[in-house]
Amino acid sequence: MRLSRYFLPVLKEDPSEASIASHRLMLRAGMIKQAAAGIYSWLPLGFKVLKRIEQIVHEEQQRAGHIPMLMPTLQSADLWRESGRYDDYGDEMLRIKDRHGRDMLYGPTNEELITDIFRAHVNSYKDLPLTLYHIQWKFRDEVRPRFGVMRGREFLMKDGYNFDLTKEDALHAYNRHLVSYIRSYERMGLQAIPMRADSGPIGGDDTHEFLVLAETGESEVFYDSAVTDIRLGARDIDYDDVAQCRGVMEEFTALYARTDETHDETVFAQVPQDRRRSARGIEVGQIFYFGTKYSDPMGASVVGPDGTRTPVHMGSHGIGVSRLLGAIIEANHDERGIIWPEGVTPFHVGIVNLKQGDDQADAACDMLYSALVAKGLEPLYDDREERAGGKFATMDLIGLPWRITVGPRGLKTGVVELTSRRTGESVEMTPEAAVARLAEIYAQTQG
Amino acid sequence: MRLSRYFLPVLKEDPSEASIASHRLMLRAGMIKQAAAGIYSWLPLGFKVLKRIEQIVHEEQQRAGHIPMLMPTLQSADLWRESGRYDDYGDEMLRIKDRHGRDMLYGPTNEELITDIFRAHVNSYKDLPLTLYHIQWKFRDEVRPRFGVMRGREFLMKDGYNFDLTKEDALHAYNRHLVSYIRSYERMGLQAIPMRADSGPIGGDDTHEFLVLAETGESEVFYDSAVTDIRLGARDIDYDDVAQCRGVMEEFTALYARTDETHDETVFAQVPQDRRRSARGIEVGQIFYFGTKYSDPMGASVVGPDGTRTPVHMGSHGIGVSRLLGAIIEANHDERGIIWPEGVTPFHVGIVNLKQGDDQADAACDMLYSALVAKGLEPLYDDREERAGGKFATMDLIGLPWRITVGPRGLKTGVVELTSRRTGESVEMTPEAAVARLAEIYAQTQG
Repeated sequence: MRLSRYFLPVLKEDPSEASIASHRLMLRAGMIKQAAAGIYSWLPLGFKVLKRIEQIVHEEQQRAGHIPMLMPTLQSADLWRESGRYDDYGDEMLRIKDRHGRDMLYGPTNEELITDIFRAHVNSYKDLPLTLYHIQWKFRDEVRPRFGVMRGREFLMKDGYNFDLTKEDALHAYNRHLVSYIRSYERMGLQAIPMRADSGPIGGDDTHEFLVLAETGESEVFYDSAVTDIRLGARDIDYDDVAQCRGVMEEFTALYARTDETHDETVFAQVPQDRRRSARGIEVGQIFYFGTKYSDPMGASVVGPDGTRTPVHMGSHGIGVSRLLGAIIEANHDERGIIWPEGVTPFHVGIVNLKQGDDQADAACDMLYSALVAKGLEPLYDDREERAGGKFATMDLIGLPWRITVGPRGLKTGVVELTSRRTGESVEMTPEAAVARLAEIYAQTQG
Repeated sequence: MRLSRYFLPVLKEDPSEASIASHRLMLRAGMIKQAAAGIYSWLPLGFKVLKRIEQIVHEEQQRAGHIPMLMPTLQSADLWRESGRYDDYGDEMLRIKDRHGRDMLYGPTNEELITDIFRAHVNSYKDLPLTLYHIQWKFRDEVRPRFGVMRGREFLMKDGYNFDLTKEDALHAYNRHLVSYIRSYERMGLQAIPMRADSGPIGGDDTHEFLVLAETGESEVFYDSAVTDIRLGARDIDYDDVAQCRGVMEEFTALYARTDETHDETVFAQVPQDRRRSARGIEVGQIFYFGTKYSDPMGASVVGPDGTRTPVHMGSHGIGVSRLLGAIIEANHDERGIIWPEGVTPFHVGIVNLKQGDDQADAACDMLYSALVAKGLEPLYDDREERAGGKFATMDLIGLPWRITVGPRGLKTGVVELTSRRTGESVEMTPEAAVARLAEIYAQTQG
């Protein structure tokens, strides 16, 4: 993309309404614009990152054998009356009357709707196991929306639902989700620690939240510092392998890591003193096993191998897709702007032309651009007539991990400059070498 | 995808609530399930087609230089009061009060919101031309929703908005949209004829609707039959070439083609009698030029080259993404089910194993599956233990354009059968030849 043809409305001043870094930087980098309290338009740059995150979630869910679909944003109140949650849910549920006076609501979650789909279509244990998921906009009418997309009212969430014949099978689904979530976060350059949590209005006994450590996190967390050394990395996972998935789950949840809701000082005291940590964390996902909480009242059952009908065991599993942008920025920024991890960057590399209008510099930039595109990379080429300082400041603010600087002086000796946004380190090399280096870097971020 | 692991709840009986073919077939093929009146869940097969259509629209819009972003589903009523449409819009607008009693609405379209974004961020003619678009769920509270996704209440639409300094530039944007829309429809295997239409609540003088001819269409249309011979085909389009885009627009709109809203018997009478047609059509898109209708009252202006401030010239342009599934099926089905055009099919080919459990047949299917995936194709492999007739009926119903049938008898002489869903024609060939043939067919559907 050429910047002269893009829509990247960066702000020079810090917006007064933003109290945390991610909110401030998303506004300044022209990623979002508030449309109403807690409701945002995703400007082109923000939309690109949102799609990258969505794509990683899709890929990892399908790798785990989970099936994508899409439920609507608006739901009938009837199903929620059936589960008993319509009255329980409180003021955060946005209740709507349509033109015929029928009670509707903007879905904050989809346990009822998916259970209704299941009971209408599935009748036999032979159709299990089954895990369906979707990525859809949700609405929770927060009394005080704040922190930009971190605590918005309209937000994008992946929610998935497993249906299994037995508790044992459902716990395998739980473990599959845990593993696939960790892999998703790692691809986004994030460490999100599974922590024992409280189930809240979803219900159920088993639940873990995934927390990214950050000073601006809304949750207080307590953990054994050794938990931060565990990585999934590139290991091969067979999602059909029950023992392997359970092993990964145990590895990631054996050490003490809890939110304040489940924190227990007595247990925490058994962690070696020099490894006890308390900190703040941003919740970016949660998984639940809740057995027959919805299948029982809503009649979602299957005929088992022995011919008797039993309610299915269920769980639900969510990733906060839009909130992840905020979490990633909270964990990856400096005083000059955002620093995108390679896995989610909106553009792979920025090209800065130091002398727009100079034939040789323009031609070199055009060649670089074509060569990068030919390698499957997306460059953002700052082809505006602006001074170098302004171009560098924009690139630093929007946080592309790599920048290629092209100027007449370097071209005399056949080199351009490749700069890392994270380390600030610059290396001179031929344009061909820069393209090859970037192709190599990004080959490692493929799923 | 192996069918044994998929969620494809086909129905044996025709559902009573469906009066037209696309609605009936989408329910029977397990593509959608009604969640409330005019509101649907997209089951996995339906979701896949929806994504294919969305992808084509994204690709063709970006090819035309239009920039993707995303606006929220809910909007504040304030902006609509500013444009004067809040009271005008009538009962189809879903009005909502949030917990603080603020007036909100579920956006039926986005002229106000995009104009607000524009005026906040763009100040100079140098930032023009600019066309922004998004693909987002909309809501129109139809008094009598019907025909499945063809006239639903919650529906997915692409809407794009151009901002230009002059009327001339805005008309070029209009033509760019016309050309990119025709290319999108053709990639979906559809002929959608641009017809002079009425502007309705959007406003403006210049507008064309795109109509797919179909008996079940809701609009009456009148046209010169020669208009159905015009194709864009594979010709190279340079979307920056004003004359070329205008030429295509003139080519496609020179002949008589109007909806009943703008039909004029006197003009129609000048069409040679043997070419005069009246028929029914399904509207799948509409483009508008409306000048300064929104930019004037909302103060969306730029400083021009001469230093004076002028309101921008705008247009808006929509494609009914979810409704297109219905239109495509209305135009492509027979008594046995759907017949997907190659450009939008949910899976590229079905594999039917005639003797599941037979070592040789299973191995041949597994090899075929891997070979197709290696070519970048997505097969749906019916690996269930069911009789051949049932497997064929399912494949015919869900309408994959190609089927490979694998059975012990053919394997004895080293062949499988490749069958066209559209013609019913079957050809025996080696598995390798079938894979090569399919790769060749689908290479031609790439954008």
